Amino acid sequence: MKFYARAILPRGFKAGGVASGIKRSGKLDLALFYSEVPCLASGKFTTNSMAAAPVQLDKKTLQSHKVFRAIIANSGNANAYTGVEGVHDARLMAQLAARALSIEDSGVLVASTGIIGRRLPVEKIKKALPGLAAGLSAGGIAKAKQAIKTTDKFTKEITAKFTIGSDTVTVCGIAKGAGMIAPRMATMLVFIFTDAVITQAALDRALGAAVGNSFNCITVDGCMSTNDSVILLANKAAGNSCIDLTRNFTVFLGALQSVCLSLAKMIVRDGEGATKLISISVKGAKTGSDAKKIALTVASSNLFKTAMFASSRNIVGRIVAGVGASGAGVKEKDLSIRYSPLKKKEVDISIGVGKGKGKAVIYTSDLSFEYVKINAEYN
Amino acid sequence: MKFYARAILPRGFKAGGVASGIKRSGKLDLALFYSEVPCLASGKFTTNSMAAAPVQLDKKTLQSHKVFRAIIANSGNANAYTGVEGVHDARLMAQLAARALSIEDSGVLVASTGIIGRRLPVEKIKKALPGLAAGLSAGGIAKAKQAIKTTDKFTKEITAKFTIGSDTVTVCGIAKGAGMIAPRMATMLVFIFTDAVITQAALDRALGAAVGNSFNCITVDGCMSTNDSVILLANKAAGNSCIDLTRNFTVFLGALQSVCLSLAKMIVRDGEGATKLISISVKGAKTGSDAKKIALTVASSNLFKTAMFASSRNIVGRIVAGVGASGAGVKEKDLSIRYSPLKKKEVDISIGVGKGKGKAVIYTSDLSFEYVKINAEYN
Repeated sequence: MKFYARAILPRGFKAGGVASGIKRSGKLDLALFYSEVPCLASGKFTTNSMAAAPVQLDKKTLQSHKVFRAIIANSGNANAYTGVEGVHDARLMAQLAARALSIEDSGVLVASTGIIGRRLPVEKIKKALPGLAAGLSAGGIAKAKQAIKTTDKFTKEITAKFTIGSDTVTVCGIAKGAGMIAPRMATMLVFIFTDAVITQAALDRALGAAVGNSFNCITVDGCMSTNDSVILLANKAAGNSCIDLTRNFTVFLGALQSVCLSLAKMIVRDGEGATKLISISVKGAKTGSDAKKIALTVASSNLFKTAMFASSRNIVGRIVAGVGASGAGVKEKDLSIRYSPLKKKEVDISIGVGKGKGKAVIYTSDLSFEYVKINAEYN
Repeated sequence: MKFYARAILPRGFKAGGVASGIKRSGKLDLALFYSEVPCLASGKFTTNSMAAAPVQLDKKTLQSHKVFRAIIANSGNANAYTGVEGVHDARLMAQLAARALSIEDSGVLVASTGIIGRRLPVEKIKKALPGLAAGLSAGGIAKAKQAIKTTDKFTKEITAKFTIGSDTVTVCGIAKGAGMIAPRMATMLVFIFTDAVITQAALDRALGAAVGNSFNCITVDGCMSTNDSVILLANKAAGNSCIDLTRNFTVFLGALQSVCLSLAKMIVRDGEGATKLISISVKGAKTGSDAKKIALTVASSNLFKTAMFASSRNIVGRIVAGVGASGAGVKEKDLSIRYSPLKKKEVDISIGVGKGKGKAVIYTSDLSFEYVKINAEYN
């Protein structure tokens, strides 16, 4: 398996990005991803009960359609807390993209990120779409990945390539997200493209497993966005011997998991004001779910996060208090704590709780002056 | 009922505070509270499974003793995460106080707040105790309330007086706590003194209800300390007609609740770096517990807290995301949000979720640069 630190679209995919005017700054804010041939699709979405309109729509589209050709995504407006009008706008946005691409019969998925509670300016998207569709290219991913950014300090992108027989399969992912900073923007969008020939069942299983071990294991500010979406398109252009749950599944899953975990860590590293990437490993919990609860309670503690920012040795006391507050019933005598040098950019914390075989790893960032600044100063 | 914005010890109580040397700064760090006559006692403690040694000891003392005479409390060292040695030290501290006061047969309760994971310097306490015991007085509460402070910017104190027949009953409370900043210090200590004649059952019931509606409804940084303690002593010196669960209970409960809620709000107002006291009222939840979950999720969100610091109108989007993330299953169409002017020092937020009759109020503070500074810069 080979990895590339940039987005290289698999065969048959094209993309593009334009400034449609949704962002007042005039920055790129509308991205289009397109496959020349029909794709299978799989998606994972926020469990926030106030899920944004595009999330509501995508869930339905994934159920009602068998083939997909495109994703249309905007930044600058989350189309969240926008009621039935919002769902109407999301559907219109998908239809306009389908028309511009002349793919009315296939599914178009939609994603939005940005301010919550304001009507999406669909007219701007409508005007921008024909030019965006006409200008699509493999190299257009460069603009597309810019167009989904909000407060992101850097683009998040990675490509994995592996072979099945003599066929090379590509898995390419891009992401945006630097901590949820709704209502200005709303967290995490992840788009993954592969040319693998794969069954729907294998695609769904692989995405579920990969998301569970990556995006579901990170916390920047403990907030679950209204718009979190992970969308995977597979267009079968690699021509490989078909991947199903029994054949070649492991190698595909490995590639997808690596892509997801790399993107997840980039999101944490770009956490608003983050100066450190911190991994918190818990071992010896009664269950895996208990282990995750302990790691998340420590990771979400502002006291822990500020101590990490300061590289303070007093971190131990804050971990003790966090473990005790987790509700997992850990006793003082069973607790062991180890950590790598605190002044480094990446810090590993190991927590042993001596009760069983449950384990979990959570990735998080520290809490700095910059976090407060970024989140307070927008008015 | 009359309230006084200062601590006025009820009849029969004395207090004092000294600098024993636990705090390197030389500030007051050891407080002693004493009743000339035997007291009933009731206590509520942290549910953190890493509860500090004094908390472990007090729970046992409250079960093994029927009468109490004193509380010995120190700041500068939490005696938490200190193993069996810590429990030994806490017991020794109580025994030394009993000996200095010549009350070996009665219960002495213990409280500590400060750095986690360091052995308590009991020798310093031993040396300071005779002088502290000899100097006790009603006015000594002034030094005692200073001696329990850690990062507190101001002392927290209040007194309520009411009459039963021709007898005046006093309920006086003091507190420390400005957000848990373990391991340097650990949160909230509350000591309440009353001269009420009251049954043990009424005392326990009243304290449980008052704590449930005050200290259990505040969150500064979402962290539950290893040392949180609320201790109530009742010495019966008022000579009133006895309060039990059926007679005069409501008036006593009212006084105790007011004292607890006032102290709880002072703790939030003094939250590390706090510039605002925010009340979050949730109405219309399925259950009271759902309402509390919603209010706590919003109150604990760093995005919400930074927006409050900035008095940002975008607060609505952050409340929406918080309500949605709470797990209470609130739908967008059922949600209503109202708020008082955001630039004031006290802000009330009302959230309606239109599902039932459950309601709750949570008090919290905003998240400022100062919070990060206070918690990061200690090394």
